[in-house]
Amino acid sequence: MKWELNRLSEIPLTKQIYQAIADKILSNLIAAGTLLPSVRNLSKELKVSTDTVIQAYRDLEKDGFITRLQGKGTFVNQREQKPVPKSPNTLPYAWQLSVQDYLPRAYFSNHAQSHEKNNLSISRINPGLFPNRFIEKLISDELLQNSKSISTYGEIQGDKELREVFARYLKKEHKLKTSPQDLLITCGSQQGIELVAKSFVGPGDFVMVEAPTYPAAIDIFRSRGASIIQVPVDQQGLRVDLLDPLVEKYKPRLIYTIPNFQNPTGAVLSFPRRQELLHIAQRTNTLIVEDDPWSEIYFDGCPPLPLKSLDTYGHVIYLKGSKIIGPGCRIGVLAANGTLLSRLIAAKGLSDLGTPLLNQKVVSLLLDSKRISTHTEKLRTALEIRRDMITEMLKKLPDVVTVNVPTGGLNYWITLPACVNTDNLLYEAKKEGVSFMPGSAFYAHAPECHHLRICFSSVDEYSLQDGVHKLFKVMNRAVKGRKE
Amino acid sequence: MKWELNRLSEIPLTKQIYQAIADKILSNLIAAGTLLPSVRNLSKELKVSTDTVIQAYRDLEKDGFITRLQGKGTFVNQREQKPVPKSPNTLPYAWQLSVQDYLPRAYFSNHAQSHEKNNLSISRINPGLFPNRFIEKLISDELLQNSKSISTYGEIQGDKELREVFARYLKKEHKLKTSPQDLLITCGSQQGIELVAKSFVGPGDFVMVEAPTYPAAIDIFRSRGASIIQVPVDQQGLRVDLLDPLVEKYKPRLIYTIPNFQNPTGAVLSFPRRQELLHIAQRTNTLIVEDDPWSEIYFDGCPPLPLKSLDTYGHVIYLKGSKIIGPGCRIGVLAANGTLLSRLIAAKGLSDLGTPLLNQKVVSLLLDSKRISTHTEKLRTALEIRRDMITEMLKKLPDVVTVNVPTGGLNYWITLPACVNTDNLLYEAKKEGVSFMPGSAFYAHAPECHHLRICFSSVDEYSLQDGVHKLFKVMNRAVKGRKE
Repeated sequence: MKWELNRLSEIPLTKQIYQAIADKILSNLIAAGTLLPSVRNLSKELKVSTDTVIQAYRDLEKDGFITRLQGKGTFVNQREQKPVPKSPNTLPYAWQLSVQDYLPRAYFSNHAQSHEKNNLSISRINPGLFPNRFIEKLISDELLQNSKSISTYGEIQGDKELREVFARYLKKEHKLKTSPQDLLITCGSQQGIELVAKSFVGPGDFVMVEAPTYPAAIDIFRSRGASIIQVPVDQQGLRVDLLDPLVEKYKPRLIYTIPNFQNPTGAVLSFPRRQELLHIAQRTNTLIVEDDPWSEIYFDGCPPLPLKSLDTYGHVIYLKGSKIIGPGCRIGVLAANGTLLSRLIAAKGLSDLGTPLLNQKVVSLLLDSKRISTHTEKLRTALEIRRDMITEMLKKLPDVVTVNVPTGGLNYWITLPACVNTDNLLYEAKKEGVSFMPGSAFYAHAPECHHLRICFSSVDEYSLQDGVHKLFKVMNRAVKGRKE
Repeated sequence: MKWELNRLSEIPLTKQIYQAIADKILSNLIAAGTLLPSVRNLSKELKVSTDTVIQAYRDLEKDGFITRLQGKGTFVNQREQKPVPKSPNTLPYAWQLSVQDYLPRAYFSNHAQSHEKNNLSISRINPGLFPNRFIEKLISDELLQNSKSISTYGEIQGDKELREVFARYLKKEHKLKTSPQDLLITCGSQQGIELVAKSFVGPGDFVMVEAPTYPAAIDIFRSRGASIIQVPVDQQGLRVDLLDPLVEKYKPRLIYTIPNFQNPTGAVLSFPRRQELLHIAQRTNTLIVEDDPWSEIYFDGCPPLPLKSLDTYGHVIYLKGSKIIGPGCRIGVLAANGTLLSRLIAAKGLSDLGTPLLNQKVVSLLLDSKRISTHTEKLRTALEIRRDMITEMLKKLPDVVTVNVPTGGLNYWITLPACVNTDNLLYEAKKEGVSFMPGSAFYAHAPECHHLRICFSSVDEYSLQDGVHKLFKVMNRAVKGRKE
């Protein structure tokens, strides 16, 4: 229930609260039956008087959005039909509630931007771990040599030089043989998923994802009107052995997988499973989307070859983001073959006419420099130290808590006893100034609510330690509370 | 019919040609009944032997894609059902042709990237007209002060500082009162259109556009499965007087308009029409998308107030790109109100998690500097001189050619006698090394094929003069050929 009120607006705060809640209900962002925050809690959260909240709730009840049950709380109604407010002209912007939309309003973004001091929720690398001065110099040099890169458009497919550099990089780092012509430069791998979804997924299609998986991918496929089929993940990644009957039954448009240091579990897809997955795709003419955000960050040996390196007939679309090479640049690369690639390039053109050229030049210089391998090595070491530190700390958790110690990547996946709901735990943790990603965010259906993910790379070491300590207390309380 | 063959690929060139043409036919990018290039022309264009093309055409005919008629040429077949090649494993990537997709493969991109020396087809400002050294210094200073802007993510809605600067800029330049909370930073206004389409337009919906209009907008709305209703444009812009019955009949999800220096005609929507348009939107609960790419580039006085400045109930979504302020940054801004804005912010998060921070910082510094107003003034002067130069040149065209002298913006819209087809003219012009946008690109249906658009700001002055001279010859030949 996070939103900001606009105190400069002419619209009274009551109306703003009304509209925000009505909007979330109409878009299914708040499901029917959901318990809304108490008047006291919401007024605290939004920093408004309780009277303001009471009035907003009263109006929402009058218009059929919610029901207040004495002593039980305020609940969202089952909607029979879209309630449209009575007098649009007295309520500014109220007519907008009648505007149909096609996005599930990104459930993901509910969690994506947390403002807690100890924010362990986002999978990012701390800016302090980047060679910022070096990058700064690269940019200055690039601008000195070619100051027009700021006032020029690049090719829609991406700057040729960067594609050449990426082809070399992918070959060297991931044994992936691609030609620059097979690559498309994107705004981060997030845009890569979007381009794939927009090109190949439509209403009524089925899409297979891992359970749990990256929340934004779920939202993106859903926003295309697709139905999501979940396939469980174990220690060796996607349960490929379960795929055959599911693919047979649903004929999914694509299978979305994160084979290396799976998000959120950290699992690595074993090599035999990689081969089997590809065989299934070939047998059934299915697309595979291989999302590979941070395979360079390994602590206990390099992960197996990417699926894409085994792909003869163009079934795999490979995505790599810029997380470890200047995330602020928002540069990603997509590798695909044949006519699928040309369709993705067309989609990219429609989306934004191409990625900013300056950013491409910067990443190109960085990837092509000798510095990149030392940077990656340093990053590995720095993050391994953090991982080990957290592993030590987590040993002290009660036995009922299970921790997957990651062999690479940026996250820990922690499993609490089944009766502990981590959505509630997050609420408690935020009071202490700590945030994490609750397990529920990672499932398309039937969420397992007793997991949580923490990222050990996003904040500085002190805040990390401090955050984990505080989270400890909260977890311990919850586990004990369960016993009582 | 523009594409590149991959000479490094293991796929034989014949198969590549086969797949590229089959793919375009399957996606309706080449319509049934279209005459394909002759074997000789295609072999010249692709730089392959005639035998290679003959073989590809033979295979396409065998698989039911095309028919070759002796002495008449090669035509695309009406498709009864999707032909799927017989033996996928002998033809690499051939299985991909059976993959359904949801994009019309961006007809726009057919024209968007021309490689002719005198490229007058794209509406861009020549990089030489930007204060590149100044921008370079801004970037260096920013990085010195805050080198982490390259390794940090920004807010999904956009950097707060940039939103503040934009709010001031929009107020000063366009009398548009917005608060930073009402703004969303996008990757160019192209992404703005995309976000709106993805949020509010779906299969079977109607969307109203001007005829002619910006080709990529047509493609974007179509890629959402919408039906496009065209409303003609005259000297005072969109024929608002025709709207009422159309809106009544089709209940469009939105009306897309470019009120200032309309693309491609250059028309300016009169103030009374702006008011009337807004009244219609209010009466009918319709969204208006106001695309305003270059209203700062006026030669004969400032255009009327934006629609958005008259918008009380949040019917207008205002889009502004970064064309005149460092197009390589690909920064745009979207102004909207109420719940529509929150839905657009969610869509932005899903698309790319936010615009690169460095680029936002650069545009922020630039817009906030005193230099921006001198830059804009200089740009106006430089482009006015070019416009006048071209106006003089165009006076020498035969009387049957009509030219709209633009009062702002970047383009000329030229009308030839109805029997001259500018698609064919483009083919002739390209032989001389000149390209332009043919009229057909700007219509969703029933294209008027005797117009063309040239941009007078994208190349340097010498190439512009040279290009227009060469185009002259081609146009004169076509007009005379018509008489003979």
